[in-house]
This record gives sequence, structure tokens and C-alpha cells, in this order.
Amino acid sequence: MPLTHLPKALLFDVFGTCVDWRSSIAGEGEAIGRRLGITGVDWEAFADAWRAQYQPRMETVRGGARPWVTLDVLHREALDTVLAAFGLEEMPPSERDEFTLAWHRLDPWPDTVAGLTRLKTCSVIAPNSNGHIALQVNLAKRAGLPWDAILGAEIARAYKPQPAVYLRSVEALGLAPAAVMMVAAHNGDLAAAAACGLQTAFVPRPTEHGPGQTSDLAPARDFDLVASDFLDLARQLDA
Amino acid sequence: MPLTHLPKALLFDVFGTCVDWRSSIAGEGEAIGRRLGITGVDWEAFADAWRAQYQPRMETVRGGARPWVTLDVLHREALDTVLAAFGLEEMPPSERDEFTLAWHRLDPWPDTVAGLTRLKTCSVIAPNSNGHIALQVNLAKRAGLPWDAILGAEIARAYKPQPAVYLRSVEALGLAPAAVMMVAAHNGDLAAAAACGLQTAFVPRPTEHGPGQTSDLAPARDFDLVASDFLDLARQLDA
Repeated sequence: MPLTHLPKALLFDVFGTCVDWRSSIAGEGEAIGRRLGITGVDWEAFADAWRAQYQPRMETVRGGARPWVTLDVLHREALDTVLAAFGLEEMPPSERDEFTLAWHRLDPWPDTVAGLTRLKTCSVIAPNSNGHIALQVNLAKRAGLPWDAILGAEIARAYKPQPAVYLRSVEALGLAPAAVMMVAAHNGDLAAAAACGLQTAFVPRPTEHGPGQTSDLAPARDFDLVASDFLDLARQLDA
Repeated sequence: MPLTHLPKALLFDVFGTCVDWRSSIAGEGEAIGRRLGITGVDWEAFADAWRAQYQPRMETVRGGARPWVTLDVLHREALDTVLAAFGLEEMPPSERDEFTLAWHRLDPWPDTVAGLTRLKTCSVIAPNSNGHIALQVNLAKRAGLPWDAILGAEIARAYKPQPAVYLRSVEALGLAPAAVMMVAAHNGDLAAAAACGLQTAFVPRPTEHGPGQTSDLAPARDFDLVASDFLDLARQLDA
């Protein structure tokens, strides 16, 4: 089904859509474990537990219980809870601070950089993530993500799926929502973007949550595009 | 004189420092003149007159007389005044809107893209301009400016030399002011950056205002670096 209006800009979810946070965090955990002599920890389960605190902690900001803070703050607070649950209370604060920055060092999926590089030739590309600017800049520098701009939560001082995040990013590009396409591996993100008038592209990442993933394996509704990866998305957009 | 601390990020002034607004605006004026049958206009003088309204119009925002608006708004209002001064009141509104977007299509200086590309290998690079995000994205896409992020006036909702613009950009990068270097062709911009604790690099652009330029030909004080162009800056920073 051809698109009637090719998007002028593509906004990307990042955690899970562009980068494989689970393997990356597990790998950083293993490295810290080796360094500190910690054994017997399932670091993939640790990564899952850390990520499981993501939505409830952002909800304290979305609900107005606290002012907007960066993900570094939320990740650091969540880490204390997860370490306690895994019996790792003795990890010193300086190590916790450093481990928190593992979220700035996530590996891209194999198609991400090549796909973004092609998509950049025909469109403005930018993250529209709940990660703040410093985190996105560090991710991009390390992984080679060729963004044209860094948009998302920090410029809106809100967290997805709050409409402000989508609308502020669109406004920052000087475009109408209908001229912008949100790309994500998550049905909820795309539903929120569609409610704001953006075009939508679903790119499944069926191992984001590991081999037993049950969520977001398929599009839950009729998005504008469904692509198998970013290279397929580039083909469908004639990039 | 070697720097004691190499900067982790470089923030750039854009109008005049990265791009040659005067020749670019004059060229766009000539093209519009040909298309509309306008003759006898000195388009370089027109560009100078348009730019002369830049500081006083931003001052209405800085002084609090009006809320923050983008440069598109200020450029468009200024254009009406300049057209009247040049006897060009008959230019229709649609042409005025299009001419305003000439500020999104400015040519870089010859060393800009090569210099930024080298500097990007050793440092985060971002504009810290009074131009808004859409303008900077459009400039960068057209000219090939390889920014890592787009910072500046819009995220601070203030205009240089207000300290908020420098400090908000530094904060967005997650860095201390002393870890960031402001690069500009304008003494006033660098003095304001230094007052916020940033490192400073002066790169003169002696023809920004045409062959008779008298301002900003040399550094007015002891900045951390003085470079003849962006390639020289890269050499001095070992990029």
C-alpha cells in the first residue's frame, strides 16, 4: 500500500527500537561482576528487572508527583532497588553511578546504522525518545547513529506517551504532525503518536525482551507502514 | 600555548561563524529580484539592513517585552521594515514568507564542513545559535554540517548573550561549563560564554560584513584559543 504523503521527517523510538538495551545492560553487568568478584547473578534477569522499573518511575513524573528529571536520575534510583532485590547491596555508590551510565552505551541492532544512514538521505531523522539529550548524544557518538537533531523528552520536559513529547518534537522541526512519521517497535508508542496526528511505522524487535518475548510481536492496528527492519523501512520509503 | 583541559564538547555560533549569511541572503535577493522584475537594488546593502534589525528585535525578547519567538518570526517582521526602506512594499506576502526562509539556506565558509568533520572525531559538536532547531536542521541538511545535536536558543527559550543559552546547552550535554568550548567569530559572544565558565575559541571571519568590515577582526581579550579557521582549530585541538 503506497503512502500518499512521504514523511519529511522520521522520529525514532530508541530503547528497543534502535538499540538492544537488554543484551547491552547484561553485558555491562557481567563486566562489573567480573571486576567486583560478583558471581551467580543472571544479568539478563537483572536487566529485565531494571527495565521493569522504567514505566512506573516515569509515571511519577507524568502524574505530576515530581518535576521532570532525566532518565539518569530515574535509572540511578531504580538501580538501588534492583541491587537490593538481587542481594547486591554492597555495590559502592561510585560503581552504581558508573553502572547507571551503561544506558548511554547500548549497542544498536545490526540494521540500525545502515538503515538510518539510508533514511537520512531522504528525510530528517531524529530520536524521539524518553532518553535525555546527553544520553542520546553519547549513544549516537558511540554507535554511529547519524541523527540530524536530538529531540524527545528533554525538550518537552515530559515523558512518552504524553502528547507533548510528540507535538514538541514536530514543532521543533517546523513541520505539521502529518508530515512526520514515528518509527517504533512498540504499539503503545505508535498509538500515542497517531493520536497526535503523526504517521506511524511499526518495526518489530522480537528479541528486545529476550527469546521468550510475548509483547509487540506484531502490529496491533493499521499503522501506515510495517517494516521488518530499518533497511526494509528505507526500501519502502524509497530511500 | 597548550590547553590544560581539552574540551569534551564544542559549541558553535552559526551566523557569521559557520555560514556566510551576507553573500547568501544577497544571492537569494538577486534571484527573487530577477523573478519579480525588481531592478536597481543593492542586495548586499539589503542583507546588511536586514541583519541590522537582528539585535534590536531579539532585544524585545531578551528584555521581556514579548515572549520567546523563533527567528522566523523576527526575520519576517524585520523584512517588512527593510522592504519598505528599499521601496519594495509591493512584494507579496507569499514571497516575503519564502524570502524569510532564505535564512535556512545559508552557505558555509569554505573550511566549515571539513573542519567540523575533523572536530567531530574528537569532540561532541553542536550549534549554540540564536537560530531555532528547524532553521539549524535545514541549514545543516543543505550544507552538510555534521552536528551531533542541535542546541541553542530554542531549548533555553532565550537569546544569546543571555547566560541561559550557554548554560542550558552545557547542561543538555551533561557536562560542566569548563569542559565545553564556545567557538565564535564575535567577541561579545565569547565574552558572554566565558562569563558562564566555558572555554573560548575565537575564529575571525573578516568578510562576514563584506570587504569593509571593521568589527571583530581580532580577539578583544585573552581567549583560550585563536584559530584562523576551523581546520586550524582542529589542528590546535589535535583533531
